[in-house]
Amino acid sequence: MKETSPVEWKNNTLKVLDQTLLPHTKKFIICRNSKEVGKAIVDMKLRGAPLIGIAAAFGMAMDIKKSKAKSYEKLIKEMKATGEHLQKTRPTAVNLKWAISRMNAFAASNKERRIQSLKELLVNEAVRIYKEDLENNKTIGRIGAELIRPKDRILTHCNAGGLATAGYGTALGVIRAAAAQKKKISVYVDETRPYLQGARLTTFELAEMGVDHHLITDNMAGYFISNKMVDVIIVGADRIAANGDTANKIGTYTLAVLSYINNIPFYVAAPSSTMDFSIKTGAEIPIEMRSEKEVTEIFGKPITHKKTKALHPAFDVTPARFISAIITEKGIIRAPFEANLDKVILNREIVAKL
Amino acid sequence: MKETSPVEWKNNTLKVLDQTLLPHTKKFIICRNSKEVGKAIVDMKLRGAPLIGIAAAFGMAMDIKKSKAKSYEKLIKEMKATGEHLQKTRPTAVNLKWAISRMNAFAASNKERRIQSLKELLVNEAVRIYKEDLENNKTIGRIGAELIRPKDRILTHCNAGGLATAGYGTALGVIRAAAAQKKKISVYVDETRPYLQGARLTTFELAEMGVDHHLITDNMAGYFISNKMVDVIIVGADRIAANGDTANKIGTYTLAVLSYINNIPFYVAAPSSTMDFSIKTGAEIPIEMRSEKEVTEIFGKPITHKKTKALHPAFDVTPARFISAIITEKGIIRAPFEANLDKVILNREIVAKL
Repeated sequence: MKETSPVEWKNNTLKVLDQTLLPHTKKFIICRNSKEVGKAIVDMKLRGAPLIGIAAAFGMAMDIKKSKAKSYEKLIKEMKATGEHLQKTRPTAVNLKWAISRMNAFAASNKERRIQSLKELLVNEAVRIYKEDLENNKTIGRIGAELIRPKDRILTHCNAGGLATAGYGTALGVIRAAAAQKKKISVYVDETRPYLQGARLTTFELAEMGVDHHLITDNMAGYFISNKMVDVIIVGADRIAANGDTANKIGTYTLAVLSYINNIPFYVAAPSSTMDFSIKTGAEIPIEMRSEKEVTEIFGKPITHKKTKALHPAFDVTPARFISAIITEKGIIRAPFEANLDKVILNREIVAKL
Repeated sequence: MKETSPVEWKNNTLKVLDQTLLPHTKKFIICRNSKEVGKAIVDMKLRGAPLIGIAAAFGMAMDIKKSKAKSYEKLIKEMKATGEHLQKTRPTAVNLKWAISRMNAFAASNKERRIQSLKELLVNEAVRIYKEDLENNKTIGRIGAELIRPKDRILTHCNAGGLATAGYGTALGVIRAAAAQKKKISVYVDETRPYLQGARLTTFELAEMGVDHHLITDNMAGYFISNKMVDVIIVGADRIAANGDTANKIGTYTLAVLSYINNIPFYVAAPSSTMDFSIKTGAEIPIEMRSEKEVTEIFGKPITHKKTKALHPAFDVTPARFISAIITEKGIIRAPFEANLDKVILNREIVAKL
């Protein structure tokens, strides 16, 4: 089963598959520094929470590789500026912040190294972030596939596939693993307006995997769910708060509510890098508001009255109470999420408040 | 406040505003017989449950006007064939069946008339169906506006406006009446994929009314509802079963569930011609499955992988338990719907089963 690889690290440059042109055209662009990576993220040529984290790490690596800094302090100052620039590109996914923090923390814990050696080690750390994501996705797939029964009809939203990660996928990683186990699954793909990531990217991956699937518009999900034609919903995540509240692509909340009312499982599949223990609940997650033109136009053509304004929140927050389980590379986590996320992800027991 | 009139009856022909070209182009087509009306309905040049009922009546009227039938029996036979043809154009909205039945019933109760006189009376009956719809819509607007509070933020789906009716609207009729009462309302308009009736038609009507509104994609409704930015949801209906279960544009069910979970009112506004007392529950309502190309392409351009199939249910059914009230020209009806619909619409009390 083919894996779709959205980025390639080669000769200290990042080759990026331009996802805005999929599924019709497979074109790559080359990013040579963090500015070019930042622009590719803003323009959504690459997207998906884990992938933008990986790309940010590579962006930092490219600047570090080219850096003329001769002291640790100088290098750290440059890294800080690069990280701040990259972090501003998209506010909701925490993986961006996570990857940048990890690069900075790695530098801090290796400050005694010679500067040239430290630069090399930092480049290696970016590669490690990439490789770990791939491994973690495969583990998520293996663990998550245990929740999928033969002939399950799965509904997914947006693209949480190889294209959103190092190349295997989170929600689609679970589907990929279940399909590899010959479970004869089928998939409903929400088109995911306005960017059509489901229609353009998820169908592309499922077609390449050879998995039976149907495209539907976002507003049709309720029809198939209420008519008992969907057995399980799986989505990815852009940020998970300490209590399990999960930010993901706009429309995810609605699917979770539909699953709750219709009594089918709703799973979130995400690597632990998506956890944000610094925030208690989803109310603290910043939601990116994007351009209204992305709503009022399709393919550059206006679809509405010229006086009509639009609103464009790109993500929403699903309260933990609507989530059946969060599938991570460290295990499947169920309610009570606050205690169990802490235990499984941070590998510690919450000490009872006395 | 301007009313949008989607059809005009003039010189025994039907002038139809081609709604597929809105909001960019205002072009009219002329229908001269029932076949042309049927084609306009199939091609969705005119749509909306009450309007296709009206158009079917005019389609029958045009054939009757041209008919060479010299006997009541001959005319009835022709009307039956015309009615059957028109009824096949779209299966979900009951108004089509209602209008055809009303024309046939009118003929039956006037069979003693001279044939030429009967033909004239039948043409007048079609005009009466049109005029009654306009009057009923205004009554629905007046009654429904009582449920709208000043500054309410209303969410609506698809187009249940002047363009879906004789010219005033059901859900948009309530909004029109509330706006006329200077209630300073604002409206969220679901774009309503795949046909974009919200983006193209509802914004057009709201812009012409001068009502503050924002376009959103269908999957954003949950975001605004859960963030307490929507006070009330109002939609139209294509068919209401005896127990209150309501078929309406695909996506309506999901909005009803969202309103239920978030504790805001969900209103259905529809003339009594939308009631189908011949069916007990929504499970008996036929759901139109349309072409998958309407899902896999936008403006004729494929949006998905070439191997990807699609599904296209055009309507869904909202169980009565998620509906706060049904607003009709005969009054506002609340649960228990079975008893109250019978009482208010049929003007009778259900006799307790002994």
